Amino acid sequence: MAEAKSIRLSEKLSAVPAFWSPRIVETVDGYDVKVVKIVGDFVWHSHADADEMFLVLGGSFRMDFRDRAVDLVAGEMIVVPRGVEHKPFAAQPCEILLLERQGLVNTGDAPASERTRAAERI
Amino acid sequence: MAEAKSIRLSEKLSAVPAFWSPRIVETVDGYDVKVVKIVGDFVWHSHADADEMFLVLGGSFRMDFRDRAVDLVAGEMIVVPRGVEHKPFAAQPCEILLLERQGLVNTGDAPASERTRAAERI
Repeated sequence: MAEAKSIRLSEKLSAVPAFWSPRIVETVDGYDVKVVKIVGDFVWHSHADADEMFLVLGGSFRMDFRDRAVDLVAGEMIVVPRGVEHKPFAAQPCEILLLERQGLVNTGDAPASERTRAAERI
Repeated sequence: MAEAKSIRLSEKLSAVPAFWSPRIVETVDGYDVKVVKIVGDFVWHSHADADEMFLVLGGSFRMDFRDRAVDLVAGEMIVVPRGVEHKPFAAQPCEILLLERQGLVNTGDAPASERTRAAERI
């Protein structure tokens, strides 16, 4: 087992090479803690059997739902319940911490696209 | 199912009534996202079958292990693996986000004490 170590999230984020490419920074039981940088629009999708947590570390973004939208700034978080269609959008670059069950596909039930990424460890 | 909403962690923390009293702010699948304010020393303990994540939101603290210690400041996180004895210590008040499997007892395998708390939702 790896020794527990301190992880500086800003350092991890500065090593992320591209937008919309989540990177795994640590694992808690069967869940991945990831960091991601986003800008612009994602694709509409849902995860049939997994909730998904977004915590804003820097900047701001909007979580679009089919019937409304929720604005989030640094220090704020949201959990998207399983089965609920959603689409993140950021007008400016935004840094986010994600918590998701291991193996979750970032584009969920949407057709695979250029946004579909398997998260690697960073 | 409750509608996904934005949660401002600083607001939640300012409503926490006491040190060492974790409060649940949201749930991701079977995991609780909690906030806690700590100062001083906790008790040595471990969780036989659950990893535990600590993310510093404000201030700093030290995670003591039996053979070493890890200092953490705001923006840094650590995951304590299952079965590993640990003891948080904060010289000054520190604000932390926790991620733990639902039902986890904060003092783990240590005898119940004044530090033992069942986390309520806030």
